[in-house]
Amino acid sequence: MTSPVAIDSRQFRNALGAFTTGVTIVTTKDAQGHDIGLTANSFNSVSLDPPLVLWSLAKTSLSMSAFQQAEHFAVHILAADQQSLSDRFAKRGIDKFAGLDLERGPGDIPLLSGCTARFQCKTAFQYEGGDHEIFVGQVIAFDHTDKKPLVFQGGGYGLLVKEEKKAAPPESDAAEGSFNKDYLGVLLGSALHQLDARVTPFRSQQGFDYRDYLVLTILAAEDNRSLSEIDALMKFGNQQLDEILINRLRDRGLIAVAGAAGDEKLSLTAAGHTAAIQLLAASKAAEADMLSPLEYGETQLLKQLLRRVVRAGHANLPSLWRKSH
Amino acid sequence: MTSPVAIDSRQFRNALGAFTTGVTIVTTKDAQGHDIGLTANSFNSVSLDPPLVLWSLAKTSLSMSAFQQAEHFAVHILAADQQSLSDRFAKRGIDKFAGLDLERGPGDIPLLSGCTARFQCKTAFQYEGGDHEIFVGQVIAFDHTDKKPLVFQGGGYGLLVKEEKKAAPPESDAAEGSFNKDYLGVLLGSALHQLDARVTPFRSQQGFDYRDYLVLTILAAEDNRSLSEIDALMKFGNQQLDEILINRLRDRGLIAVAGAAGDEKLSLTAAGHTAAIQLLAASKAAEADMLSPLEYGETQLLKQLLRRVVRAGHANLPSLWRKSH
Repeated sequence: MTSPVAIDSRQFRNALGAFTTGVTIVTTKDAQGHDIGLTANSFNSVSLDPPLVLWSLAKTSLSMSAFQQAEHFAVHILAADQQSLSDRFAKRGIDKFAGLDLERGPGDIPLLSGCTARFQCKTAFQYEGGDHEIFVGQVIAFDHTDKKPLVFQGGGYGLLVKEEKKAAPPESDAAEGSFNKDYLGVLLGSALHQLDARVTPFRSQQGFDYRDYLVLTILAAEDNRSLSEIDALMKFGNQQLDEILINRLRDRGLIAVAGAAGDEKLSLTAAGHTAAIQLLAASKAAEADMLSPLEYGETQLLKQLLRRVVRAGHANLPSLWRKSH
Repeated sequence: MTSPVAIDSRQFRNALGAFTTGVTIVTTKDAQGHDIGLTANSFNSVSLDPPLVLWSLAKTSLSMSAFQQAEHFAVHILAADQQSLSDRFAKRGIDKFAGLDLERGPGDIPLLSGCTARFQCKTAFQYEGGDHEIFVGQVIAFDHTDKKPLVFQGGGYGLLVKEEKKAAPPESDAAEGSFNKDYLGVLLGSALHQLDARVTPFRSQQGFDYRDYLVLTILAAEDNRSLSEIDALMKFGNQQLDEILINRLRDRGLIAVAGAAGDEKLSLTAAGHTAAIQLLAASKAAEADMLSPLEYGETQLLKQLLRRVVRAGHANLPSLWRKSH
């Protein structure tokens, strides 16, 4: 094979990385009876009848002779929560199978648990593929689950989010003009309201209203803040700080006011700190409940997207935490 | 090749579908000089040196003879915004290339534009693969962009979201205890505040405050609503409806009050409708600005995740739109 054009190997690798793949671990047993396994994303389906799949292995791989001689191998499509397993089987010189809950397939090959899908194969063809060898296996048994798969792209892991099935729009949509349930403000407001509705019972039981809650939790994030700082942060909750609120919290022994008039700073008392910690615990419980409909990884994804939106618009808006820390 | 175990073809296809892939269009030119192309997700990389890639084609494909005879082919990794192109090249019996902006590669093969990556290949090997033929190409030229790739999994398209690079946590995190920037309430509140901060200037200019805005836009979504309904919806904005607000909007000629005392309903006047439409337009503009840091598809993803969270918690909370419609 001639190579008429010089190909920049690093750029070629980057371009190949643009192709998204799942992540697999391929396992077999070597001639000495040792379990062999490695992480590969070069897997793909080939044929339905007969059922064939393929993957390729670098000719320099220490496992090459094991796979060349093996009559059977198994391909495991990893689930989103198996990233550490993927990393483990991508390493050299460690006992990859230590502590794993294994089943056994044909030829006693090791089968891993908790995967999205598994294919037990009989080696059908081995093909020349440059610096790799292409292994084609005939699938003799397989199983699969609904577990969300691990995804690899551009040299890193990612999360796949399936396109939402588009339901027919409700008839009222036409009347709503351009402003509908899809408006970000309605979604954010609804979510915030529902989150807060889960905290309200605990808050009321402790004798706090929404503004008390904001002041206490703002001070819990960082104590000893000026009135204007606190007021600016309360705007996130669409609320304002005022004298009545300050006096009420002080009279209940929850906050202390220090500093000269016009330059006052508020901080939590020991009782205020205890109250704030309880409110925070209730908030975290409400959050966990609120986010329970989301699948693995999607919670972090939602937050990631919100953070990116919030960060980009942060100009002229106060931070809950001082940058000087 | 023997098939010792009966493989359920449909279940096998489903299990294979668990493996996530990008989506490619493979193109070539047939012996008569016609442009040929089809959608395939059986692509994968094989070798870096020499640079080899592979894909497989059903032996029943009408394009089989073209690819068997072709000296060159091109693989295009599709971008997330090329879903319609993927669908078009998956069809039969249409002029797939009609109206497309084509470049030309070796052997005059057609090259598509706007892809995440492209590989121009010289056919290197053709291998037997059951009901498919495996084509291995030597890459003689390639290019790639930063465009987000289209992803396929479980029989449908999806969006890939890369794992966020984990930055070192700020030092202040320890002091914040379990309540930090990561709290959903803070993220939602910040996002809502920033969204609203973009609408505020227009609102003030028109002489409206936040509560006016809520009443007018709630009525724009659906007119002729009871006071309790409107009040319940204003809770999404953490606000309440009261007599003063109603009178103010009525005195400005924006809303009309109808019905017996205790059973009043509010609706927009013509002037109120005009004002509401302008406020909605400003809101949509604010939303577009707010979401501009997100990439293609991520906006819908953020909304999808918010909707799922909101829907799951909708019990006992009012809807902006009546179900009876």
